[in-house]
Amino acid sequence: MLLTPEQKSEIESLRSEAQPTLRSVSPGIEAMLYTPLPVLDHGFVRVIDYMGTDSAIVQAARVSYGRGTKKVNEDAGLINYLLRHRHTTPFEMCEIKFHIKLPIFIARQWIRHRTANVNEYSGRYSIMDKEFYIPEPQQLAAQSRLNHQGRGESLEGAEAQRVLQLLRQDAMQVYSHYEEMLNEDATGKKLDEKRDGLARELARMNLSLNYYTQWYWKIDLHNLLHFLSLRADSHAQYEIRVYAEAMLEILKAWLPITYAAFMDYRIGGTSLSAKGLDIVKRMIAGQQVTQEESGMSKGEWRELMTVLGKN
Amino acid sequence: MLLTPEQKSEIESLRSEAQPTLRSVSPGIEAMLYTPLPVLDHGFVRVIDYMGTDSAIVQAARVSYGRGTKKVNEDAGLINYLLRHRHTTPFEMCEIKFHIKLPIFIARQWIRHRTANVNEYSGRYSIMDKEFYIPEPQQLAAQSRLNHQGRGESLEGAEAQRVLQLLRQDAMQVYSHYEEMLNEDATGKKLDEKRDGLARELARMNLSLNYYTQWYWKIDLHNLLHFLSLRADSHAQYEIRVYAEAMLEILKAWLPITYAAFMDYRIGGTSLSAKGLDIVKRMIAGQQVTQEESGMSKGEWRELMTVLGKN
Amino acid sequence: MLLTPEQKSEIESLRSEAQPTLRSVSPGIEAMLYTPLPVLDHGFVRVIDYMGTDSAIVQAARVSYGRGTKKVNEDAGLINYLLRHRHTTPFEMCEIKFHIKLPIFIARQWIRHRTANVNEYSGRYSIMDKEFYIPEPQQLAAQSRLNHQGRGESLEGAEAQRVLQLLRQDAMQVYSHYEEMLNEDATGKKLDEKRDGLARELARMNLSLNYYTQWYWKIDLHNLLHFLSLRADSHAQYEIRVYAEAMLEILKAWLPITYAAFMDYRIGGTSLSAKGLDIVKRMIAGQQVTQEESGMSKGEWRELMTVLGKN
Amino acid sequence: MLLTPEQKSEIESLRSEAQPTLRSVSPGIEAMLYTPLPVLDHGFVRVIDYMGTDSAIVQAARVSYGRGTKKVNEDAGLINYLLRHRHTTPFEMCEIKFHIKLPIFIARQWIRHRTANVNEYSGRYSIMDKEFYIPEPQQLAAQSRLNHQGRGESLEGAEAQRVLQLLRQDAMQVYSHYEEMLNEDATGKKLDEKRDGLARELARMNLSLNYYTQWYWKIDLHNLLHFLSLRADSHAQYEIRVYAEAMLEILKAWLPITYAAFMDYRIGGTSLSAKGLDIVKRMIAGQQVTQEESGMSKGEWRELMTVLGKN
Repeated sequence: MLLTPEQKSEIESLRSEAQPTLRSVSPGIEAMLYTPLPVLDHGFVRVIDYMGTDSAIVQAARVSYGRGTKKVNEDAGLINYLLRHRHTTPFEMCEIKFHIKLPIFIARQWIRHRTANVNEYSGRYSIMDKEFYIPEPQQLAAQSRLNHQGRGESLEGAEAQRVLQLLRQDAMQVYSHYEEMLNEDATGKKLDEKRDGLARELARMNLSLNYYTQWYWKIDLHNLLHFLSLRADSHAQYEIRVYAEAMLEILKAWLPITYAAFMDYRIGGTSLSAKGLDIVKRMIAGQQVTQEESGMSKGEWRELMTVLGKN
Repeated sequence: MLLTPEQKSEIESLRSEAQPTLRSVSPGIEAMLYTPLPVLDHGFVRVIDYMGTDSAIVQAARVSYGRGTKKVNEDAGLINYLLRHRHTTPFEMCEIKFHIKLPIFIARQWIRHRTANVNEYSGRYSIMDKEFYIPEPQQLAAQSRLNHQGRGESLEGAEAQRVLQLLRQDAMQVYSHYEEMLNEDATGKKLDEKRDGLARELARMNLSLNYYTQWYWKIDLHNLLHFLSLRADSHAQYEIRVYAEAMLEILKAWLPITYAAFMDYRIGGTSLSAKGLDIVKRMIAGQQVTQEESGMSKGEWRELMTVLGKN
Repeated sequence: MLLTPEQKSEIESLRSEAQPTLRSVSPGIEAMLYTPLPVLDHGFVRVIDYMGTDSAIVQAARVSYGRGTKKVNEDAGLINYLLRHRHTTPFEMCEIKFHIKLPIFIARQWIRHRTANVNEYSGRYSIMDKEFYIPEPQQLAAQSRLNHQGRGESLEGAEAQRVLQLLRQDAMQVYSHYEEMLNEDATGKKLDEKRDGLARELARMNLSLNYYTQWYWKIDLHNLLHFLSLRADSHAQYEIRVYAEAMLEILKAWLPITYAAFMDYRIGGTSLSAKGLDIVKRMIAGQQVTQEESGMSKGEWRELMTVLGKN
Repeated sequence: MLLTPEQKSEIESLRSEAQPTLRSVSPGIEAMLYTPLPVLDHGFVRVIDYMGTDSAIVQAARVSYGRGTKKVNEDAGLINYLLRHRHTTPFEMCEIKFHIKLPIFIARQWIRHRTANVNEYSGRYSIMDKEFYIPEPQQLAAQSRLNHQGRGESLEGAEAQRVLQLLRQDAMQVYSHYEEMLNEDATGKKLDEKRDGLARELARMNLSLNYYTQWYWKIDLHNLLHFLSLRADSHAQYEIRVYAEAMLEILKAWLPITYAAFMDYRIGGTSLSAKGLDIVKRMIAGQQVTQEESGMSKGEWRELMTVLGKN
């Protein structure tokens, strides 16, 4: 994460300007506002704005004229109830706005979450930053042999080194050619006075998918929780999971009651199918159940046993 | 609008609790927070929370690290440009949350705007308030003869009086029977100790569509502007237009630059079809154009002439 | 359900006009097209159009050039996998369009599902039908004492009779006054030549919430399954559940593989929180677990025991 | 566009399997089903499925039991009216599903249209095709000097040749290194039996943004028209505009009445601001109006004069 001195000073300036407001205030997230949390080698997540606190959820659930209940206890009981019973509308009453810097191949996964507002840095207007993602060596995993979309073991030394070298070399080269085609360097300085330079909207196609982009991303709490339940999951690609983990920290500071309920009901919880529930009941009753007579496929049975801590 | 003393005191209490925040603050809307603006005979709109200011739009459009520009002039130029060219994503970066009390038949129109978050008072859990809408006599219009969905002239004295009497009488009666079926009065007091009372989710079906409901309604600025451009329009039903007009006042206090641009580009503007544009060009060139040779239907021609101030 | 002879003949005419198409065809749902399935006393659900079959889901999941696999077995395996792992996008590739007649108080619940397309019969243009919902006597339940939004036991004879009488009498009266205000009867015939009649958009406010409305409702399969998982649930209000049940029958005819997977993974399945999963593991290991040491509230414990068939 | 013999034969097989259906059928689009329309050097658009015809819009607008009107004339009048008055819900009652092959940098623009269903080819599961976009020489435009995001004149010979060489060379090289990192070639054949190969979800980050991806994309007609009005516009990037133009041809074959109305009211039409409308009225009245006294900025005035054919 390379912040210019100018960017740092803009952030410091924003953090020094407290003003009075009559709105709900969450002290935990105020302490984090504007400051980037580093993610990957050059990425970050930072909170630009937020709306609501845990009691805004209670207030909305009751369609109340005042602040909701006065007692933290009652708020927690209601929030647990709402999350457990998937009464989602009160959670939509909180909103958060992030500024995120992330590699393009991750941005392409991220944007599939449609119920959010996005304003992305434009490669049609502006020159893309010279920043690209190179994985840590321990993240250089082989294709999984079990799971068609996952990662297996880390690559060994020489193969890993070769991968890093290729990624770095190609990223440097495509950017150097990007500048040559634009006839401008990364700061916008013209290279050759006699040439026009290719339009930015075209030249950008030469960049590789590990280049960083950035956007403002605004989402309501219900949809944020949905995003986090998918992207903080162990099956999510590592490079998006680390963003989700940073956002879980933000959630904890912003809405401590909701965070606790979410960890219990979603992140730490599980789903059982009708067959799975039947198997669980039989196991509780002390019966032996085998995959063969369970009606489940082998894959599904293995998944259930993993959830139940049986393998 | 009947606020109980308890509701009034909750609102006063919220308005007396200013706290420091590092977020953007709009002084204009802070002055209105929580206070109901009366609409119709018992309805209201009040702002519960908001996110962003005019400069948040600029900040998002530039995906900037700081507050955007420092100069109001530049902000206005950019906001005008964005609105004129329908670059809508930066406007999605502001958000507002309202508490609204409105008749059910208006709520049914309102909810058709799907890109918003809603939490409605529940007639399954709670007893509906004994409040219903009765139009002002001058609003008692006849069905329009020109426009299949509009209103024509106001009804004359005796017919208007009869309508008001029927509306009032039926509304009183259905509520009285609602209480009898519930075996509870409006305050939840049991009427007859020996009866159970019908479930609330069933008894509510006896209420008429002019009964008031209320909800928390949260929406981003882009979608709010779309709502206002349709519902503050002269073709919108009067009973929803008055809510849109109250919200225009709120918008003006919240985001003065965006409000001015919106009044110019949307509320005061118009659309021309290809045919309409061709006719306008010919009229500017001093040619006579008639409906017959315009290629337009009579209705479309009449609409165009009205827009151009020709009838 | 009162279909006029003209409506019946329109439906028959549509059902007699088979045409060749190169699109995927689902024989099961073709047999049901256009024909209303009766729901409640005057409501119905009928399928107007559909897009896709079980193999369209497979085809989309593979982004394939052809039809997907040829083998039903493989299709079922993949569909099960997708539904179990919440890979939802391939399910969005099927679409269905219904024509539904339903009481307004149910329409108000229904419309909260926002990710659908709706075109409702307009009470601004047209006269509302004289049809209202009166529950079957066995559906006249008391407010539940356990569950704040549910129903308890059925009301006894005299109280039930009184409820039915009030509902019927008020519904008849508000419609009769609706006609008087409109100065038109249900067929559009003017009542008094000397009066204008109140605008339709106003007069409709006198109708009660058990009056029927109707709409075209179009939704993709993923969102339909979400709707059904909430509305076919035993906690849903009876009057919407019966519509969901009719739509489950349609789903079964349309997409038999998806239907079977949905019944296993959603309708018959359950969710466990982190605490719930821990309790289940301990019970499988033969330990005694009590509510007091479970960390769960009494309500949550009772819900878990019900799911596990323990009470 | 490189279709393999297998893909061609799958398409032919689908086109040979007509089946009877009771649904609405559009003969114009049936003739195009499944067949790819080539776009750019390797891309295509092909229709996989559709729902509805022009009369489905009429049918929905009337919430009718039958097919809508029998007369094409009346259908056209109503569709014109609906489109002119932005009554958008009946247009949502048609749906179309495409299979599209497009460069990744265009896919990133495209996906910003959120109200659509997308299922993209997965670079986590599968090896990306070795196909990348190289512009035609006449498309190699310089950055516009007037318009910050547009294209200016085409580049001259030597500069253009250099750009094409760089694009081609880098694209070839990054793919070759992609295969080396994967330890697989484009067909999935292992290269070196002793190495594991990097996980696909990681190796793909080395590909450049002109590589092609493909997806199934399904959208309702209202949102398709919105997409086309933005992307068939002269300000849209050329590489997305050619897709929009192919889809306009499809629209014309599918829904000829809607297509004609859309060309008149959207594609060929324009918007006027309040200021613009006032200027037009004054020009029609024969007055001279200048930018200085118009209240418009220079840019806005220039845009208006262009619309009015004055420069």
